[in-house]
Amino acid sequence: MAGTLLIGSRRYSSWSLRGWLAVKLAKLDVDEKVIALKGGGKTTEIHALSPNKLVPYLQHDGAHVWESLAICEYCAEYEPGLWPQDRVVRAHARSISAQMHAGFRPIRQNCPMDVERVPSPLAEISEDLAKDVALLSETLEGALLRSGTATPYLFGDSLTVADCMYAPVAIRIHTYQLDVDPAVKTWVQTLLAHPLMQEWYALAVAEPAEWRLSYEDK
Amino acid sequence: MAGTLLIGSRRYSSWSLRGWLAVKLAKLDVDEKVIALKGGGKTTEIHALSPNKLVPYLQHDGAHVWESLAICEYCAEYEPGLWPQDRVVRAHARSISAQMHAGFRPIRQNCPMDVERVPSPLAEISEDLAKDVALLSETLEGALLRSGTATPYLFGDSLTVADCMYAPVAIRIHTYQLDVDPAVKTWVQTLLAHPLMQEWYALAVAEPAEWRLSYEDK
Repeated sequence: MAGTLLIGSRRYSSWSLRGWLAVKLAKLDVDEKVIALKGGGKTTEIHALSPNKLVPYLQHDGAHVWESLAICEYCAEYEPGLWPQDRVVRAHARSISAQMHAGFRPIRQNCPMDVERVPSPLAEISEDLAKDVALLSETLEGALLRSGTATPYLFGDSLTVADCMYAPVAIRIHTYQLDVDPAVKTWVQTLLAHPLMQEWYALAVAEPAEWRLSYEDK
Repeated sequence: MAGTLLIGSRRYSSWSLRGWLAVKLAKLDVDEKVIALKGGGKTTEIHALSPNKLVPYLQHDGAHVWESLAICEYCAEYEPGLWPQDRVVRAHARSISAQMHAGFRPIRQNCPMDVERVPSPLAEISEDLAKDVALLSETLEGALLRSGTATPYLFGDSLTVADCMYAPVAIRIHTYQLDVDPAVKTWVQTLLAHPLMQEWYALAVAEPAEWRLSYEDK
């Protein structure tokens, strides 16, 4: 193995999913080390191993890479198809990817990722959350309908970094039945059916039962 | 002009400074449009103009780019010197740049950027803030002392995207007298003396007096 990808429990670790997808798409030859998340940033094992005290953390061929977006950029150097070829479209893809990296906090905080959650809407949707979902829908639609007709993935016929960055959001749209536009719903279904997402799900549900967190801890 | 860079009040808009520095370093030929920040996300003029409802927002030669980190990556396509040439060092620079893009919230929230603030420490430093300052110092030292001897800028003799991303933090370290390691203090002085930072300061203090915000609004 040329390195190691450190990730958290696949059931919950949305950031890990982003980095993992990029690493798989770039076909980096790395060992995967999964750490059971304790929730609420209390996983001290990760604090000791990772420079930013978070997952994912990639060590590959002499490089140390942390933060999912930096891992995605690193992977795109090995698999240039991870970004759109056209300069203007690539700028668009980078914009929404960075927007996901730093933004959409109301969605991240109110709708923690849990691949085992039985799909059902939240009992209450705050104004902040509703606004955030509207911005999310608009942002994803802006990518999908860029050229008039919806593309299967955010920027065309294959996955780019943007899909990696928004993949955990697709899970959330599905499990919390968030109110998004039809083109976005179709993208969610397409993405969740992708072999890599299916692989992630299979590995997630196979994790030890004692790794499950209560809602408050996620 | 080949485009427009939309930014907020230079006194306060830390994200604008990041994008502006990258655009200047890449020598993009753009017009600058400055909007007076009202504070607390209440600047509706920006909501109407920018896709993510935030500054900075760059329109350049057909491309629409938002989020400071995406603007930096866009600029690095025009000025490759904005990233270190070595693959491993570039991965390091991308990691800390993405870490700044999404992280260091305690510092961002407790120490709002204000170029006119008379340097003095905060009356109280919470445990969260102290931990965040320690992580910041460690992160910057990790870049500066990478090869044993401290470099003038984070990754060598000239500014990279990492310096652009951390430039507002340099202002905060200076104005809030944050407790950082000596190598980081030296970097702060070097960076603040850079002609582009001096230009930003001069433009900031020349902004209309009525653009000043009360502390609560920043």
